Amino acid sequence: MMIILTYDVNTESVSGKKRLRKVAQICLNYGIRVQNSVFECNLDASQLVTFRAAILDVIDESKDSVRIYNLGNEYKKKVEHYGMKVTPDQEGSLIL
Amino acid sequence: MMIILTYDVNTESVSGKKRLRKVAQICLNYGIRVQNSVFECNLDASQLVTFRAAILDVIDESKDSVRIYNLGNEYKKKVEHYGMKVTPDQEGSLIL
Repeated sequence: MMIILTYDVNTESVSGKKRLRKVAQICLNYGIRVQNSVFECNLDASQLVTFRAAILDVIDESKDSVRIYNLGNEYKKKVEHYGMKVTPDQEGSLIL
Repeated sequence: MMIILTYDVNTESVSGKKRLRKVAQICLNYGIRVQNSVFECNLDASQLVTFRAAILDVIDESKDSVRIYNLGNEYKKKVEHYGMKVTPDQEGSLIL
């Protein structure tokens, strides 16, 4: 299933900047960055559980915001992209 | 249907800053901001057409990036939120 993760991490503090790097790295471990704070992750149910837990372990819920959108398995027709930053299709072909 | 719009607008120039304000305002006309550059818009098919056209009329596709994700009508179970910025449920109740 295609999971979209978006985040706003408060980077006003040194610890915030550290959280931002960690969250981004976790997202890169599970998927691809399509915009600065938007990631697309093609995951099964158990991967989603570990992904979510890893993210929640890092963020400060009193300062940061994370949204997870589940597009399901039939996601290609649910995603539109305009402008910069072409997304390499998860299964390898390049979406131009 | 619930439409998620995310954007990265290049604000290195004055015109970029202007595009950012315009894109954000259009999104606010059609939905609610849930993160800095993430909006949730509950739209019918014709509203989506005009919304998309209005956004594409503003952005510079050589500099900016817009992604539109369509969660369909049964979207509530497809959206998870953790941390700051509570989203008022589109139908009025507050999601705590």
